[in-house]
Amino acid sequence: MSDKTQSPYVTKSVRKMSDGVWYESGENIVQEKAVTIYVNSKELATIVCSPWDLKNMAVGFLCSEGILNDKSKLKSLRIDEEKGLVYTEVEGFENAVSGKIFLKRYINPCCGKGRASFYYSSDALICKLVDSDLKISGQQILDLSKELEDRSDIFKETGGVHCSGLADRSEILLFSEDIGRHNTLDKIYGKCFLEDIPTHDKIIVFSGRVSSEILLKAVKMSVSILISRSAPTELALDLAENLGVTVVGFSRDDRCTVFTHPERIL
Amino acid sequence: MSDKTQSPYVTKSVRKMSDGVWYESGENIVQEKAVTIYVNSKELATIVCSPWDLKNMAVGFLCSEGILNDKSKLKSLRIDEEKGLVYTEVEGFENAVSGKIFLKRYINPCCGKGRASFYYSSDALICKLVDSDLKISGQQILDLSKELEDRSDIFKETGGVHCSGLADRSEILLFSEDIGRHNTLDKIYGKCFLEDIPTHDKIIVFSGRVSSEILLKAVKMSVSILISRSAPTELALDLAENLGVTVVGFSRDDRCTVFTHPERIL
Repeated sequence: MSDKTQSPYVTKSVRKMSDGVWYESGENIVQEKAVTIYVNSKELATIVCSPWDLKNMAVGFLCSEGILNDKSKLKSLRIDEEKGLVYTEVEGFENAVSGKIFLKRYINPCCGKGRASFYYSSDALICKLVDSDLKISGQQILDLSKELEDRSDIFKETGGVHCSGLADRSEILLFSEDIGRHNTLDKIYGKCFLEDIPTHDKIIVFSGRVSSEILLKAVKMSVSILISRSAPTELALDLAENLGVTVVGFSRDDRCTVFTHPERIL
Repeated sequence: MSDKTQSPYVTKSVRKMSDGVWYESGENIVQEKAVTIYVNSKELATIVCSPWDLKNMAVGFLCSEGILNDKSKLKSLRIDEEKGLVYTEVEGFENAVSGKIFLKRYINPCCGKGRASFYYSSDALICKLVDSDLKISGQQILDLSKELEDRSDIFKETGGVHCSGLADRSEILLFSEDIGRHNTLDKIYGKCFLEDIPTHDKIIVFSGRVSSEILLKAVKMSVSILISRSAPTELALDLAENLGVTVVGFSRDDRCTVFTHPERIL
């Protein structure tokens, strides 16, 4: 899954020191691009990202923000790759509540006890309990984490990107890399939305830390199992507990940690 | 440097697997909080962060966005720690260009050739060439990186935070940890702004990847040497080259890589 038309990194001359000795060398540097998303001619947001799969990323971002939830509403999508501009037309955007509350803080009306602690109004609006009887074994978790690592070619070359995989229990079906953790998921979300690929029966495998924003992206995709090589935050786990997501962290080598909803682990 | 009034993490019961064997255990989970910054009663931005040093972070964010550049203009600052709300009054905010262009895309008028490729209008407005005759040796770079690692107590406990240090050539003077890379720098920036601590003669030591946004925070603090344990992006290096910042990456153990302006390395 990628529309990379040029190399994802450039090679630069650098000075390296090792054991007190300086020498000249080459280093692969990952690219970074700013992409600005317009909806119906309004500048919505600028995203710092890796310059590929921009269409999927922009659509995934709009889905994640609740601005797009029905493919028939996406009337047009045009990308200026050179300048990093994505122009979209979304039917009904001006009248939808999603545009008005974009990035607006949600102040919980009931003191945060007993329900998920959203902090964006759009999340409170669109995030629903994930209900799934999908189950996975410990060995399958480790195998998927290993496959994610094996496929991270750009990370191996540059050390500068995160990656995500959308998987079933036996293999990764969609894979994305980006300098931004969030973008890796938006790129997958956008592709699934545009190509009608179901996500509710899938698993997300992820290289980065699981903050609440990452957890909620899984919820919006109705994904019930989120596996990460890294650590979760407390708020992400509170949300996972309340919204029904199994979070597995520190999944690397021959170990992993199940933080929430262990009933899905065989 | 910290106003932590409670533990920065909580301990949860989890299920761990190691070498195929499952067992119950405890895991330290780092906290995450949403903090919304208001300027003159207008909701400006919501930041996901670690819940300490919020005053410094909010002020550093306003400085970094060009909204605050003179301490006398900060008329009041009030924090609701419980709800994560920061109310500020900034004199002249309504008439200043900085508020109007907040998060607005900068479309480079001259095709991006021969000058820094900003993508936020505020950055194009406030980022100026860093001019400094500060120099540092390879051993000092490694010593500062080692000190940063040694002081990362919350990372050691949770694996879930980044950290930054503001240093002179011999030691780290200010240290901050946060779940967000950017916030670690904003917390230091805000403290220096509020307490009139000079930064132009200092060095930043940083745990995370150096994207353009991180590089520009150093530029805004007039810091000429940025040392990271991790990788930079190509855009960050372009900006560093043009704006006069020495970027050192992959600084860990007994090695490091100098990417730009090696004339500051002794």
